[in-house]
Amino acid sequence: MAIENPYYTHEFHGDYELIGLGEFALEEGGVIPDLQLAVATFGTLNEARTNAILVTTWYSGTHQIFRDVYIGPDRALNPEKYFIVVVNQIGNGLSTSPHNASGANAGIAMSKFPRVRIGDDVRAQEQLLREHFGIERLKLVVGGSMGAQQTYEWMVRFPGRVERAAPIAGTAQNTPHDYLFTKALVEAITSDPGFKGGEYSSNADVVDGLKRHAGLWAVMGFSTEFWKQEVWRALEFDSKEAFMEGFLEPYFTAMDPNDLLCMAWKWQHGDVARNAGGDLAEALGRNEALARIMPINEDMFFPVRDHEHEAELTPHATIRVIDDVLGHLGLFGVAPTYIGQVDQYLQELLDADA
Amino acid sequence: MAIENPYYTHEFHGDYELIGLGEFALEEGGVIPDLQLAVATFGTLNEARTNAILVTTWYSGTHQIFRDVYIGPDRALNPEKYFIVVVNQIGNGLSTSPHNASGANAGIAMSKFPRVRIGDDVRAQEQLLREHFGIERLKLVVGGSMGAQQTYEWMVRFPGRVERAAPIAGTAQNTPHDYLFTKALVEAITSDPGFKGGEYSSNADVVDGLKRHAGLWAVMGFSTEFWKQEVWRALEFDSKEAFMEGFLEPYFTAMDPNDLLCMAWKWQHGDVARNAGGDLAEALGRNEALARIMPINEDMFFPVRDHEHEAELTPHATIRVIDDVLGHLGLFGVAPTYIGQVDQYLQELLDADA
Repeated sequence: MAIENPYYTHEFHGDYELIGLGEFALEEGGVIPDLQLAVATFGTLNEARTNAILVTTWYSGTHQIFRDVYIGPDRALNPEKYFIVVVNQIGNGLSTSPHNASGANAGIAMSKFPRVRIGDDVRAQEQLLREHFGIERLKLVVGGSMGAQQTYEWMVRFPGRVERAAPIAGTAQNTPHDYLFTKALVEAITSDPGFKGGEYSSNADVVDGLKRHAGLWAVMGFSTEFWKQEVWRALEFDSKEAFMEGFLEPYFTAMDPNDLLCMAWKWQHGDVARNAGGDLAEALGRNEALARIMPINEDMFFPVRDHEHEAELTPHATIRVIDDVLGHLGLFGVAPTYIGQVDQYLQELLDADA
Repeated sequence: MAIENPYYTHEFHGDYELIGLGEFALEEGGVIPDLQLAVATFGTLNEARTNAILVTTWYSGTHQIFRDVYIGPDRALNPEKYFIVVVNQIGNGLSTSPHNASGANAGIAMSKFPRVRIGDDVRAQEQLLREHFGIERLKLVVGGSMGAQQTYEWMVRFPGRVERAAPIAGTAQNTPHDYLFTKALVEAITSDPGFKGGEYSSNADVVDGLKRHAGLWAVMGFSTEFWKQEVWRALEFDSKEAFMEGFLEPYFTAMDPNDLLCMAWKWQHGDVARNAGGDLAEALGRNEALARIMPINEDMFFPVRDHEHEAELTPHATIRVIDDVLGHLGLFGVAPTYIGQVDQYLQELLDADA
């Protein structure tokens, strides 16, 4: 049975629209009886439908961070020029997810939610863009972390329909190290006795597990130098403990455990090589989009070299390294120098002939 | 009440001697009524007592790895030239520890074990060497990870008595990132319902927590490239899962949870600046030993730059970076290229005029 969680509401997330795709068959064999995607759009689609940009979301993320940090009239993602569609990933708490599965989806609520793959998200996004907006071709697909996984999946799966692509801080094929990191994240949650095999009655029952999960993000999400230089002081905290209690812990404890686990499994098993019988080079070789691959130099679990390896296999792709001491969670755009770099690399990409 | 654990026996650990120091007052205010240090020696002390080398142990480690990997007639740590004393740290399961506290120590068994600091270990080692072996001056102090913390503590606390020092893959002042990593390690264990606040009846009661603890070592202990290159194949495993189940998990699940927690707290709070009113530069400035500081290039939680920062503050110290894709757990000496590098840098240090 679905449960209430005030975090996943318009009050917290502002404007977004739920768009139904009806019954949606998943690659792992499950079915979502009535898939609802939470979509936020910015700007206007031109008549020729040639100015559409798709933005994909990351683990624990929603459209909100893109609205607040990445999109704006002074940004590369300019709603005065482009029609920007941010699609919340399946399981993120706003789109159909374990905790909110009700009505036609009541049979897949909570622990009964089927396994979802990156490929499912991308197929759903393609269907949404085509059927709902009449968009057949994208000016740009961009996303960070799991959003980068979805971006690569677009590049491999729909090569003729993506003009430009910008995967930020994420890989096309999840690495074994990331597999182990996500395993630790999952176990931090599922080991909490309050989790009850996914049949808790409130996310508050799993607060201890969610705090340990936040603690793992503290270790891997930022860089060693972030902590050493006490960069959290710039956010007006006066100790790392206060930063944990006032930032990372409330961020994650507000969320739904099953939703996080749905995304974690998807992340863990992300692999575009599945489209080519396990051959990563062949899969990435299908890309036709002009691409900028943007690792963050201090990222501890999507390190630069993992991006370089895939860039070598991807036609039309160039690496642009973002300098940010925050590491992977630099994606939040907290450092004043972050978004300017993203803008520069995205603008360069948008201005190039594709 | 102390409990049995077959891992901490001569059957598993070979020859070592228990040497009693009697009542030992700890810096945090506790007392060990009868401190027993487990000591393994190699070679012979010369008449002038000028050929003594002290080796300190790391988190979860014992004298065993030094006997098997680091010490030998073909090594820099040559028992035909030196008298090598390996002292197991307090709480490591062989020296007086939570799980084995009995007899006079019965009152501090298990959850009642007092907090121990790196400084306590070093004071106990100094007393042991002086009173038991008549050693006033050390040719060399060497240790890795928490053993490096002890090495630095010797350099700062007993500057006239350490001729040479070699901290490997560890820092004089524990970093905030390492604080958070050890916190996650601690919570992996204490969150297991079988832990029962430290009053379990067997380490097997805490097997789930110990496995999660091993899982965190998989994420942080090796490098991302270790997993990507499948270096575990060289150890004759055929999957990363088999490596976890056949190597890291049995390694840690054999150990005592309270013993690991005693060491984790000690590691977490390691800081030579305590000897100088919190001034790290002043503390490290006291060093008189010729030192080689040896980070491992792929170490994820004692990264090279943290060593460089301290090397700048330490007189007579030079950095020698060890190249090892295993990362921190390169300390195990699994890579065939590891011990040769350590030998080279230690030999260079032993051959230099101190």
